[in-house]
Amino acid sequence: MWIGDDAAALAGGTLFATDILVEGVHFDLAWASPQDVGWKAVAVNVSDLAAMGGTPRAAVAAVALPPKRHGLADALLEGLADAAAQLGCPLVGGDTSQAAELVVSVAVIGDAPPSGPVLRSGARPHDVLFVTGALGGAAVALRALRSGDAPDAGAFERLRRPWPQVDAGRAAAAAGATAMIDISDGLASELRHLCAESAVGVIVDEAGIPLGPGAGIEDAFGGGDEYELLFTAPDRVAVVDGFRAAGLPEPAAIGEVVPEGSGHVLPDIGWEHDVP
Amino acid sequence: MWIGDDAAALAGGTLFATDILVEGVHFDLAWASPQDVGWKAVAVNVSDLAAMGGTPRAAVAAVALPPKRHGLADALLEGLADAAAQLGCPLVGGDTSQAAELVVSVAVIGDAPPSGPVLRSGARPHDVLFVTGALGGAAVALRALRSGDAPDAGAFERLRRPWPQVDAGRAAAAAGATAMIDISDGLASELRHLCAESAVGVIVDEAGIPLGPGAGIEDAFGGGDEYELLFTAPDRVAVVDGFRAAGLPEPAAIGEVVPEGSGHVLPDIGWEHDVP
Repeated sequence: MWIGDDAAALAGGTLFATDILVEGVHFDLAWASPQDVGWKAVAVNVSDLAAMGGTPRAAVAAVALPPKRHGLADALLEGLADAAAQLGCPLVGGDTSQAAELVVSVAVIGDAPPSGPVLRSGARPHDVLFVTGALGGAAVALRALRSGDAPDAGAFERLRRPWPQVDAGRAAAAAGATAMIDISDGLASELRHLCAESAVGVIVDEAGIPLGPGAGIEDAFGGGDEYELLFTAPDRVAVVDGFRAAGLPEPAAIGEVVPEGSGHVLPDIGWEHDVP
Repeated sequence: MWIGDDAAALAGGTLFATDILVEGVHFDLAWASPQDVGWKAVAVNVSDLAAMGGTPRAAVAAVALPPKRHGLADALLEGLADAAAQLGCPLVGGDTSQAAELVVSVAVIGDAPPSGPVLRSGARPHDVLFVTGALGGAAVALRALRSGDAPDAGAFERLRRPWPQVDAGRAAAAAGATAMIDISDGLASELRHLCAESAVGVIVDEAGIPLGPGAGIEDAFGGGDEYELLFTAPDRVAVVDGFRAAGLPEPAAIGEVVPEGSGHVLPDIGWEHDVP
């Protein structure tokens, strides 16, 4: 994990981000197809733009392929291209090489919203805390896969083909979001980041957290690979109205921002697949 | 190797490129320090911008680190940051993970020159063929290293710390360059790319090719890791005057562009460290 926001915000409104996926760390080809890996590599980058309220502009992909895996390159490229097309982030270039395991590194650029990029550092006491969708389902699906059980079909699809919340990020920015982050490493971990960067605390209403299929509160706090957005905004009505006007599902209010030191102690759990 | 130009040229004048370096493929930690690897990862990307006549704006780095290599991450970051500062391409973000070998993937954005990006496809018959500096020295230095001999100090420095030709690329663009490419894989390989993309041939004056320390013509044609620029332009005087006005060494005229099928058959050699 790099320090700072999901994407870098440059002068002139350009956003710039990169995420790397490594076989055996971020995905398992036992249940994810190479096409799924390509999709995910683009999607997690677009999610970084979404978390700034941004709109994707273009992607490049750098790929290291293990030797003697027939058809892997073509299948991976198919997934990259599919995500690029469906997520509105054209794949404009790249580089290929070889390595012991499959490594896919994508970088994206995008455009900040007219109101400016939404950082992790802008949350203020009395802001309402929102999430854009149900959490924990991916963790439950992954656990099922690892136990050899059949996962919930919808949760498995979301795990294989995460859908970044670009429209929701834009709607949140337009509705006055003060801080935003994507929930790639579990709600607890992202709340800790947001509190640290904004120098605030949070009071979380656990009963308000929407849960995915079969998920408990621990799955929501600790399970990764969701790609919903967590954001703060001062005006709950503006958020609800803005999402409704954009034709988007109403985000769930899950708590409020409080002064640093006066909020809940967040559980020290999170989805850590990255080395420091 | 991806299809197309060194960098993608987007609407609005933004250039976007990525290059991946893999341990054992692109570098050998027996003679390159982790700082050198970080430097090179940024430099080869900036060279892609230079080959379009562009100016660097920002870089992101995605890194996969092998386990249990104490100090590697810090040393690598030092090299990345050093190159970013010295090459005028600020490192604004990144991602880290782990892998069996060291993998460094950098992406850069930059700005096309006012006259538009110089592609590989614009060379026309009667254009003059130029290179910005001496070739083959890196290949000789690498051969010496692999034989356990002491390499030429200057050539070794260029191999460890390649310096992308940003100023030369801008001067070439301003002087009317019609096609340009960086010589990362040997002159023969780059000439073949340029001829194929422009649908032209070339007559090369081998005696005019500037050679690095200890290098023969085969080293210039087949040796990689140079990062000089190869470009074509219709007006030799404009090029010489433009480089002189910019305070740059005069590029060497090494031949001319001719209609497709009527030029030299280029030697089928080149520095291939990339899988298809």
